[in-house]
Amino acid sequence: QGSSADGQSKAASCAACHGAKGKAVNAIYPNLAGQNEDYLALALRAYQKGERSGGQAGVMQAFTSSLSEQDISDLAAYYASLTPLK
Amino acid sequence: QGSSADGQSKAASCAACHGAKGKAVNAIYPNLAGQNEDYLALALRAYQKGERSGGQAGVMQAFTSSLSEQDISDLAAYYASLTPLK
Repeated sequence: QGSSADGQSKAASCAACHGAKGKAVNAIYPNLAGQNEDYLALALRAYQKGERSGGQAGVMQAFTSSLSEQDISDLAAYYASLTPLK
Repeated sequence: QGSSADGQSKAASCAACHGAKGKAVNAIYPNLAGQNEDYLALALRAYQKGERSGGQAGVMQAFTSSLSEQDISDLAAYYASLTPLK
């Protein structure tokens, strides 16, 4: 089970593209605030396993390559806990 | 440019997993309501081009295979126009 508090401290490098509160800085990146925790973990693992290519997948693969399973759970819990911003 | 009205009529088959208002019926699927329009279109094209595998990618590839570029724009506009539900 992920800890959103730990996830917040691990999300510093994600904020550059996904925004400080999970609202992406650019419309080609997904908003993450309020996204489903299980889906977020699945997506992070997909990038980590190289199951996604094209677009920004290369950037995401680089960012996810060093994540542990706990990191993934914490980051997913953190972003899922945020209120989606319109 | 996509039309969210046209997208709404084209989203009938998406609702089974992504919910009638873009709040997914299952936590392993992404919520789509209020997601960035450009990202949604990029993700649909990625599934269509086979740039995503694993998980539910096979299902998405089947659904996107018959979509036209206009369909993709309309669906992206529609889901981006919805208010995200917590």
